Amino acid sequence: MSVSNKKKGVMLVLSSPSGAGKSSICKSLMNLDKNLSLSISTTTRKKRPNEKSGEDYFFVSIEEFKTMLNKNHFLEHANVFDNYYGTDKFLVEKKINNGEDLIFDIDWQGAQQLREKMREDIVSIFILPPNKKELERRLNSRGQDSNEVVKKRMDGASAEITHWAEYDYVVINEDLNKSVEAVLGILKAERMKRIRQVGLVEFVRTISHDS
Amino acid sequence: MSVSNKKKGVMLVLSSPSGAGKSSICKSLMNLDKNLSLSISTTTRKKRPNEKSGEDYFFVSIEEFKTMLNKNHFLEHANVFDNYYGTDKFLVEKKINNGEDLIFDIDWQGAQQLREKMREDIVSIFILPPNKKELERRLNSRGQDSNEVVKKRMDGASAEITHWAEYDYVVINEDLNKSVEAVLGILKAERMKRIRQVGLVEFVRTISHDS
Repeated sequence: MSVSNKKKGVMLVLSSPSGAGKSSICKSLMNLDKNLSLSISTTTRKKRPNEKSGEDYFFVSIEEFKTMLNKNHFLEHANVFDNYYGTDKFLVEKKINNGEDLIFDIDWQGAQQLREKMREDIVSIFILPPNKKELERRLNSRGQDSNEVVKKRMDGASAEITHWAEYDYVVINEDLNKSVEAVLGILKAERMKRIRQVGLVEFVRTISHDS
Repeated sequence: MSVSNKKKGVMLVLSSPSGAGKSSICKSLMNLDKNLSLSISTTTRKKRPNEKSGEDYFFVSIEEFKTMLNKNHFLEHANVFDNYYGTDKFLVEKKINNGEDLIFDIDWQGAQQLREKMREDIVSIFILPPNKKELERRLNSRGQDSNEVVKKRMDGASAEITHWAEYDYVVINEDLNKSVEAVLGILKAERMKRIRQVGLVEFVRTISHDS
C-alpha cells in the first residue's frame, strides 16, 4: 500500500442529560463501526452475577483502587454512592496508540477531567434532546415513578445540560438514525485530522522531490 | 421546526501542490453541495473576454485595490506577476454570517494569512498526492513541456508540500471520488461544531427545566 495508514485512535467523549438518547446512540455506533469500543471503567463496586471483569468493568478492591489513584493511573475518577469508578490511563493509551477508537459515555465532570489530561486526543460531543416536551416524555417513560423521582431526574438533566458549551460538537437528537450518522460522520472526519495521522512525516518524505 | 437551525458558515481552505488533484476536488464539491461556493477574489488583473466581474473575479484598478488594502479590506492578498489578488473581508463575513460555506483554493501563504485573521472560522485541508510517481505523472501530463518547465513545477510542488503540517486535516488523494467524499465528510462534521451553531444558547434555554 502506497499510503500512510498509521492512525492514532480517537477518544470520543459523549455526554448528555439522561433522556437525550445517548445510550442508544452509543450502542448503534459500536455495531456500525468495529474500530470503536466502549472504554471499560475500573470500579470498586461489587460485581453482579451477570457481569464479567474486563467486559463490563474491571473490578478491584478499594485498596487496589487507592493505590492506582495514588500512582496517577486514572485519567478521571469519581465516587458514586460510595463506589469508586475510574478510567485507567494505560489501557486508554494502549488502545489509541494502536489506532483503536474509544467511546466514553461520561458526564461533564468526567469529560472535564479527560480534557485536562488528553486534550489533543479527545473529540467531545454533547447530545441534546430535540425539545423540552420530548425530554420530559423520555424521563417519565422509564417506569411508574413518583412525581418526585421524575422531578429529581429533570433537575439532574437540567444541571447536565448547562455544560453543553464545553464540548467540541453538539448534536440535537431528533431522530436516532440521523444522530448516529452525525456522530459517525464526526468520528470519520476526526480520523482525518493531521494530528491523528501519525505516519505523515514519513509519508511526505517519500513523495518529496529530493527523496 | 423545534430545532435550532442557525449556522455560521465554514471557511474551507484547500491547499496542495499542483498535481495533487485539488481543482477537480473543488469542482466536484461545489456540484455536490449547494451551500458551498468558491470565494471570489478581487484582482487588478485585466479581465479576459470570457470572464465576468463578480463571477470569476471582482476586477478593480490598482488604485482601488490599494485603497482597499490601506483600509484593511483584505483577509489575505498577494502579488503574482505584477497583478494583485485579495480576499475581501466584508464579502466573506457576509456569506459566513448568512450560513453559507466558502471554499478557498489557496496556497500556504494565503492560508497563513486567513488563519491569522479568521482562526475560528477556518477549516484547512491539505491534499497530498498518493505517491511521488503519480505526482510526477500529473505534473508531466499537462502538455509537451520541456524538462526544465517540469522540473520547475516539481520544485514548486515540493516547496508547497513542506507546509502540510500547518493544516487541520490531511487527505491523501488516491481516488478522486473517495477524496471528495472525505472532504465533504469533514465539511459536514465541521458544521456540527458547537462554535458554528450560533443559535444554541437560545435553543438550550427552551429545553431547560425552568423555562
